[in-house]
Amino acid sequence: MTQLSPPKLDRSQFELLDQNDSLAPMRDKFSLEEGLIYLDGNSLGVLPKATADHVSQVIKRQWGVDLIRSWNSHHWMQKPTQLGHKVGRLIGADVGQTIVCDTTSVNIFKLAAAAIKMRPDRSKLITETGNFATDLYLLQGLAKLLGDHIEVIALPRDEVLQAVDEDTALVLLTHVHFKTGSMWDMASVTQITQAQGALMMWDLSHSVGAMPIELDQNNADLAVGCTYKYLNGGPGAPAFVYVAQRHLSQFEQPLTGWLGHAKPFDFVDDYQGATGIEQAMCGTPAVLGNAALEVALDLMLSADMAQVRRKSQHMGQLFIELIQQRCPWFELGSPTNPEQRGSQVSLTHPQGYAIMQALIARNIVGDFRAPNNLRFGFTPLYLRYVDLWDCVEALVDIMSTESWNQPQFLKQQAVT
Amino acid sequence: MTQLSPPKLDRSQFELLDQNDSLAPMRDKFSLEEGLIYLDGNSLGVLPKATADHVSQVIKRQWGVDLIRSWNSHHWMQKPTQLGHKVGRLIGADVGQTIVCDTTSVNIFKLAAAAIKMRPDRSKLITETGNFATDLYLLQGLAKLLGDHIEVIALPRDEVLQAVDEDTALVLLTHVHFKTGSMWDMASVTQITQAQGALMMWDLSHSVGAMPIELDQNNADLAVGCTYKYLNGGPGAPAFVYVAQRHLSQFEQPLTGWLGHAKPFDFVDDYQGATGIEQAMCGTPAVLGNAALEVALDLMLSADMAQVRRKSQHMGQLFIELIQQRCPWFELGSPTNPEQRGSQVSLTHPQGYAIMQALIARNIVGDFRAPNNLRFGFTPLYLRYVDLWDCVEALVDIMSTESWNQPQFLKQQAVT
Repeated sequence: MTQLSPPKLDRSQFELLDQNDSLAPMRDKFSLEEGLIYLDGNSLGVLPKATADHVSQVIKRQWGVDLIRSWNSHHWMQKPTQLGHKVGRLIGADVGQTIVCDTTSVNIFKLAAAAIKMRPDRSKLITETGNFATDLYLLQGLAKLLGDHIEVIALPRDEVLQAVDEDTALVLLTHVHFKTGSMWDMASVTQITQAQGALMMWDLSHSVGAMPIELDQNNADLAVGCTYKYLNGGPGAPAFVYVAQRHLSQFEQPLTGWLGHAKPFDFVDDYQGATGIEQAMCGTPAVLGNAALEVALDLMLSADMAQVRRKSQHMGQLFIELIQQRCPWFELGSPTNPEQRGSQVSLTHPQGYAIMQALIARNIVGDFRAPNNLRFGFTPLYLRYVDLWDCVEALVDIMSTESWNQPQFLKQQAVT
Repeated sequence: MTQLSPPKLDRSQFELLDQNDSLAPMRDKFSLEEGLIYLDGNSLGVLPKATADHVSQVIKRQWGVDLIRSWNSHHWMQKPTQLGHKVGRLIGADVGQTIVCDTTSVNIFKLAAAAIKMRPDRSKLITETGNFATDLYLLQGLAKLLGDHIEVIALPRDEVLQAVDEDTALVLLTHVHFKTGSMWDMASVTQITQAQGALMMWDLSHSVGAMPIELDQNNADLAVGCTYKYLNGGPGAPAFVYVAQRHLSQFEQPLTGWLGHAKPFDFVDDYQGATGIEQAMCGTPAVLGNAALEVALDLMLSADMAQVRRKSQHMGQLFIELIQQRCPWFELGSPTNPEQRGSQVSLTHPQGYAIMQALIARNIVGDFRAPNNLRFGFTPLYLRYVDLWDCVEALVDIMSTESWNQPQFLKQQAVT
């Protein structure tokens, strides 16, 4: 067994941090099973307590009783815009630039296609190798559809920006990397991209709700994001789209469904896109998904995002310190500088899958991403400092009592 | 006041029909407010009683407690395929050809793009003028994206089939017309289309759940459809996609999201589509929408679809007879032949909007489609024969007590 260095930190220090945490009362707004330590809110956020009742009300009263009339009387039809405004406040977007609709994947396609239209003489779509898969795949699908004149260029993180040139139509990057938690500097990356005349699209899936984001201030062009991670909108909740005001007059996305039409209920034969961000809509809004999302957004908007970020960074820092002191078996898969890290920390280990399974068996839930990443997400609204301590203690215990080079773990890993 | 001809039918005959209706017990499975006559199930189906509890269970237990683990343990990830199988049974599609995902609009885009890829030397996408707007718009959006070599040709209903030629890649028609209820003959239209080497896509939004549909038997190529009308899946419920088995090996749709990948959780950089119908998926499934849909599909599958169609046709026939006998003010906007009609009847009147408002004020809910269509949908699972009688009586009363050429009604109409 590896010799452990004596702990410099102890549990009481973490208890004290919880006592002094001004965000601590938010935890009570969430439905969390006794004994569960949930470090996977970066993948699927926790259920807000108010969600079930609100969705039930939408089902029983709005759908069940008011039926078709609810499209207007309960604003089902206006909900994408209304929720867009709420998301806008979380991403530093003034009203009229954000809308909630479809999935992040579908929205990437819409915006990438619109970007190519806005930069018609350029051929390159640039992104990062190892980006979240759907970002890569949607660009590839679009390029294949459009033919030889459009090329997707995926490069390692440190080569992306040098590749942006006068033939680049779009750069698509995920603000916080899904696996490593590495965060791009939004201001400088946007600036470098735009200096070449290219458009910048941010995928905010792994940052929205975990930190203040300032799209307008950073002069972003386009953005998409997921609402079921840090935003707690629920599994498969509708995603969002942002298009900067200055682009809306030329914005033209190809998924020209009836709800993106200037006058959807005229049912005329020819498409005429809405002039505002509503043109990013396509089909009928997911009413139940929107209902759950609204509760979650209101809850998130009740928190001070600067405070959320401070707690998140502090938690990340403490977790890394604990791991470095107590868990010599792991490599750190995330940046140590809190300014370059989102709200998650990845540890790597060849038997990562089996180790995460052992942790989950103790009701401590993080997740695993192939080939060797154990991911731990820090969600300041409902995570306690003691949870970090307890998680690392469990890891120490697991790693000390099992030999992680034995064949059964290698076999288990292969199940992934 | 117009002189009315004496009624040949009376309410007791309708009561008797209800007493002898073997589908009548199904009504109790739905949540219907006392006194409401709902003739708009062709637009938004009624809430099944079991839905609220099931969705609540999915929210509180699956999301709230089991959290991220539910993607596997509660089959959230497999749900699109599972629900696709259930939809498949309603549309005459053998397993492995149908999947539930996204909206009808998004799915039209996927399949139309795939069709063009399967017919690379052909330039025409043919559809009907006055088709449901989103069908027209999506083809237009796709054609605009692809450039001059793809042309959308929309023609009046009686000219569509003559236009199909050896340069036609795809014919997209809505099986039952959203406004008139006119139904295409699936077998012959599919055959005529395919005789020219073109692919046939059916939009089943206004027929699925109202009648037996036999996609496989009629050799259909592609289909999409909505689940929140006759299927009662809930407002904005996820839609479905059908691709005939014989096309799956060449099927390539451009919205290549991570869940259409052969191995989504490998997170590799290059897209490799799943070999089956799963390739039609794009982003993360809408779990709450799928939960509500599953209850509705199970309920629909418990009914005999041939019986549903018989009752639907009978209701349509009786409604038309009553209107013809008692309501001389209206023109019939639907085919009289029940074999050429879906499960709705449209009446036209210049003051249609105001008349429908007056009807709705009496808790009899149909809907209005510009410029002059009053739509009445017949949903055999929860509609009673007496509802038809009462609806027509109310119409007689409304039409007899107001003068529908007065300026206030013309003004009201303009509000539409």
